[in-house]
Parts: sequence; C-alpha cells; structure tokens
Amino acid sequence: MKKLVCIIPVSSFSNSKTRLSPFLSDSERRKLLKVMLKDIVSNIRGQVEDIILVSRDDGVLEYARQLNVSFVKEGEHENNFLNNALLDAIRNVRLNYPNHDILILPSDIPLVKPEHIESAKNSQTDLVLSPSKGGGTNLLLFNSDFDFIPLFGDMSYFNHMNEAYTSNMTVNIIESFYLSLDVNTNEDLGEILLHGMNTHTYEYLSNLNIIVKSSHGQERLDVKRKDEG
Amino acid sequence: MKKLVCIIPVSSFSNSKTRLSPFLSDSERRKLLKVMLKDIVSNIRGQVEDIILVSRDDGVLEYARQLNVSFVKEGEHENNFLNNALLDAIRNVRLNYPNHDILILPSDIPLVKPEHIESAKNSQTDLVLSPSKGGGTNLLLFNSDFDFIPLFGDMSYFNHMNEAYTSNMTVNIIESFYLSLDVNTNEDLGEILLHGMNTHTYEYLSNLNIIVKSSHGQERLDVKRKDEG
Repeated sequence: MKKLVCIIPVSSFSNSKTRLSPFLSDSERRKLLKVMLKDIVSNIRGQVEDIILVSRDDGVLEYARQLNVSFVKEGEHENNFLNNALLDAIRNVRLNYPNHDILILPSDIPLVKPEHIESAKNSQTDLVLSPSKGGGTNLLLFNSDFDFIPLFGDMSYFNHMNEAYTSNMTVNIIESFYLSLDVNTNEDLGEILLHGMNTHTYEYLSNLNIIVKSSHGQERLDVKRKDEG
Repeated sequence: MKKLVCIIPVSSFSNSKTRLSPFLSDSERRKLLKVMLKDIVSNIRGQVEDIILVSRDDGVLEYARQLNVSFVKEGEHENNFLNNALLDAIRNVRLNYPNHDILILPSDIPLVKPEHIESAKNSQTDLVLSPSKGGGTNLLLFNSDFDFIPLFGDMSYFNHMNEAYTSNMTVNIIESFYLSLDVNTNEDLGEILLHGMNTHTYEYLSNLNIIVKSSHGQERLDVKRKDEG
C-alpha cells in the first residue's frame, strides 16, 4: 500500500445533521459537525500525508484553515452531490499527489482511531471497506491505480463491493464497532457519550448537558437533555 | 490463555425476544432464537472445549442435545435471573473443567465468527470484553483464576470494566461491528439480512419474506414482510 491522502466530504455547515433536529438547534448541529471533524483530523493526522475537506461552503474552507488541513471547493453539480464532490477531490489528489492511495472517511465518525487507518494501510488489497450501521460505508481506501468511483448513499457498502467485484479489485473488510458509529440520530449521540470519552465530541455533548440511559423499546438508549427532566 | 469453555444463557424459548412482537409471532421468535443458537454453536465449536447452554427451560435441554452441546439447568432464583444462571453454569465449569477459562456469549449474535474467539484467546489479559450497541457486553472471557461475577443487564460493559478495575484484572477490548449486532429490534433483523449471508438466521428470515430497505428517519433501516406491501 502506498502513502495515503484522506478526503472528508462536508457539503455544508448549515442544514447539517438534520435528523438531530429539533433535539439540537441549527447552531448546535453545526458545532457538533465541527467537533467531530476535529476528532477525526487529530486521530488520523499521523497516518496520512494530507487531509482534504471537500465542500461547497466557504465556512468549511475557514475551518479547514483552522484545523490546518487542505480544502477543495466542490464544483457546481446538478445531482449526486456527495459522490460528485468526492470525484472533484479525487481529481485534485491525482494531480497533486501522484502515486498516493486515496482514503475517504465521512465527517461523522468521531471514534475513528489511528489503529483503524493503520490496519487499512497494512491491507494488501486494492480496496478496503468498513461497514456502518444501515448498509453504509464508513471507511473506503482504494489503490489509485484503479478508477474507482465512489457510490456513497443508500446501501453503499454493497454497491462498493459490487464495483470492486466488477473491477477485479481485491477487497479487505475492517469490521469495527467504533468505525460503525456514525452520528445521525439521537441514539447515536448516546453511543458517543458511552464510548467516546476523551473526544472533543464527548466534551461538547456533555457540556450541552446531554445524558444517556438504557432503554428497552425499539431504541436501546434514551438520550435526553438534563433540563428535560 | 488456557483452554476455553463457552457458556450461553438462554433463559427460555417461550417469551423470548419480546421486542420483536408483533412483527414476529411467538413461534417465529422461538424459531429465530434456535437458528441464532445454531449459528453461534457452529461458528465457535472449533475454538472451545465445550459449549454449555444454561436455562430453566427443558425445551432448551432438548435443543442442546440436538446441537450436541452441554446443558446446565439453572437453579431457582428470586431475582437477577440472568447473572444467577450464569453463576450456576460457572460453578459447573469450575467443577468439570478445572483450569479452563470461561467465555460467555449471548444467544443473539449470529454474526460471531471463529476469528473473534481466536482473538479473544490470543489476548494475554485477564478479561476480554466486546461492546454491543446500547452499552451492553456481547463477549466476555475471563481468566478462571479470578472470581469474576457477571454483571449483565443495563450498561453491563461499563460495569464489567469497573469490576475488572477493582479486581486488578488486565483488560483487552475486541471492538467488532459483527459482534455488536445482537438481535432485539426489527432494525437488528435488517442488519442480519444485510451482513449475515450464509448464516442459518439469514436463511430463516429470508424464508419469512422479510425484506430490508434504507430509511432516513430515527431508524436507518425499514424492515418489512413482503406481504405488508
């Protein structure tokens, strides 16, 4: 496996994480996204040559500067925004980092650890994938000798597997509980509070007085603000 | 790490997995529990010296015979049934398998793989734990030189950690997506349909015409019976 460049797609700070509304206000959701990015960047920085945030939002450019990572402005696309933005960033990596392999991580996995990236780097396969809850992909690393097209969206894990199969790429799976914990719902916040001690995200959620208890319904966790009683 | 004996607590085939009612009928939930046990037993058998189902239900004794595994009848307890049943089984292991370490697995993790047990065996620690969703424990292996007391129930993962700490036990964490997937809710059935190809559980759920699609609400998966339309 060659050296890596990591791409993290962010689309925009506004209207992010809408499934957490109204539990979190718009500005809280924006702040949450920022602290999650901070966790990811600090946890993976030592493992990659560069980290690129790709976004259409100039606020993300500002934040990339604060985090001391690179930025690619996504083009004007008519549809399939996430994957087209990733293609913009991939083109940029191919230009600026010839002979580097490409790692794609989502912006909402604050429990990613350096060991995950290390395992991915040590895989001797053309593609490395990690499943998320609900059929998604929470880590994707591909050998840049292949014209791999990202297919994020519904059931992306299986679409990525199929693409690897039709492209004759060898695949390794890193199946990790911590990598599977992306943050979209209130219950996900609870998992971060349980397992994310020492992350910026944990600290932020604790400061919002969010607490978590066991539950025995269709959800496993009851996530509340302390002031809700 | 010494040789292992695995204990799987089953309480009873009736009234099992009640959170899946009414989506699955009582007899379907009973059958589901049986196929999950079949998957677990076939996946771990090569890694352990014996497998013991502990239960108060004679139906489970029958099924243990079919699966060719051992059975311990749990005593009459007044409360804390799960942990007291486990203590019954642990006493039995200490008598019949001196100098074996003790592995405890829940009955609802059909995606457990031989590699998980192998990693646990290779840990050089007194305790090995795997987190489940919602703060639970889906794998627990302890050095039988310690009088470790199982503390399953709400937030057991953290209670087990605390116990290890106060008992001066070294701990290793196996953080696995597949191990975290226990089956309590409809959405969990969806995860098994997505990631459990080649398991008996997958086959059973498919034969019930259960299908799974992406969802974008508080749940990630929409799990239905085909006949619901």
